[in-house]
Amino acid sequence: MNTTTRLVEVRRNVMKQNDQLAQALRERFREAGVCVVSLVSSPGAGKTALLEKTLARMRTRWRVGALVGDLATENDAARLARAEVPVRQITTGTVCHLDAAMVERALVDWNLFDLDLLFIENVGNLVCPASYDLGEEMRLALLSVTEGEDKPLKYPTIFNTADVAVITKVDLAEAAEFDLSAAHDSIQRVRPGMLVVEVSAKTGAGMEGWFDLLASRLRPRSHQLAHQGD
Amino acid sequence: MNTTTRLVEVRRNVMKQNDQLAQALRERFREAGVCVVSLVSSPGAGKTALLEKTLARMRTRWRVGALVGDLATENDAARLARAEVPVRQITTGTVCHLDAAMVERALVDWNLFDLDLLFIENVGNLVCPASYDLGEEMRLALLSVTEGEDKPLKYPTIFNTADVAVITKVDLAEAAEFDLSAAHDSIQRVRPGMLVVEVSAKTGAGMEGWFDLLASRLRPRSHQLAHQGD
Repeated sequence: MNTTTRLVEVRRNVMKQNDQLAQALRERFREAGVCVVSLVSSPGAGKTALLEKTLARMRTRWRVGALVGDLATENDAARLARAEVPVRQITTGTVCHLDAAMVERALVDWNLFDLDLLFIENVGNLVCPASYDLGEEMRLALLSVTEGEDKPLKYPTIFNTADVAVITKVDLAEAAEFDLSAAHDSIQRVRPGMLVVEVSAKTGAGMEGWFDLLASRLRPRSHQLAHQGD
Repeated sequence: MNTTTRLVEVRRNVMKQNDQLAQALRERFREAGVCVVSLVSSPGAGKTALLEKTLARMRTRWRVGALVGDLATENDAARLARAEVPVRQITTGTVCHLDAAMVERALVDWNLFDLDLLFIENVGNLVCPASYDLGEEMRLALLSVTEGEDKPLKYPTIFNTADVAVITKVDLAEAAEFDLSAAHDSIQRVRPGMLVVEVSAKTGAGMEGWFDLLASRLRPRSHQLAHQGD
């Protein structure tokens, strides 16, 4: 067997193990009643900025936490911790994606029953994370207006494994000469019927709709009535 | 041996094979007197836009060609072909990077002695291409002003394997509230002394300096004097 064939075979085993572990995680999340939302995108598409605003808002009504993946720094966890919710950094070294085992390890001392909503921010990469199920309920693929309208066509797999496309930095659309209608066409050509959200974490444009969409995925729970009110 | 250990070992073999092939390519490029420049970046950082302008300009004095990697489309080759230089697309399917074997195959019927300058545009990915030597003489790592100043710290390996950092889309710096000085600091922290170029392919800012830098890498050759003049 040559090296490439062997690599393909070993990779297939890795994927299979990951899928099994992700399925077990999904079951745990379901039992605990926590909605898990992952974010994938290019580096710099605005995952952390969107999360910062989302954590700050959602925490007023829900019990929220986040895991953030990066190769080398803990900058994102530091940024997100300002929202005063539990945040844990997963530092992957040279690994280009998160996998289910990393998520499982990061959650080892968290009680999932204490959460309603858990975000998982992947490493910035529009290719490799597509292959790794993390047990999430909803995967967001972010696309910033500065990246060009044809990104979904050029990176179809990641958009195909995602549930929602989020067009970010819409405040820069004019300066970047971004054609929103062409971007929507690209997304629909790759994944017909895909739900698309347009936001600017900076100006707040579209953010209310995004918060409503998220909230619609969360089940009203008795402890909310008992313990919280705002 | 468990799956992860086996994966690490198979990967090591793949890297070794790639390094050997890249070294052979480098030798072929040197013998043919062609300067090979590769470009790596996030999706949407502006590799193709920079190349479009660079091909159009450099072709007036030099014999230029390009290979462009993408997962799924031939959009970039179509864009670059407008510069009327030889361009070939490498479509990688789901593979997240170019490797030396793909470059070798793409060049199979090209006479390298007919070129002074060959560009290789990698798949948009700030992680995986770092590990694959393509036999290039100079590797550019592009960072657009819309991606944030800390990208070199978060993706240090790719900046460490590159020779030149190119900050792109500087025309959007103000709208994106990009702190150029912080970006320079990030780059120098990751790779002290790294050469940094700032450009806007859209407005032309910084492009003359970039063309001069490229030209300084090309050897004056007799056929230029004999066959060309502008």
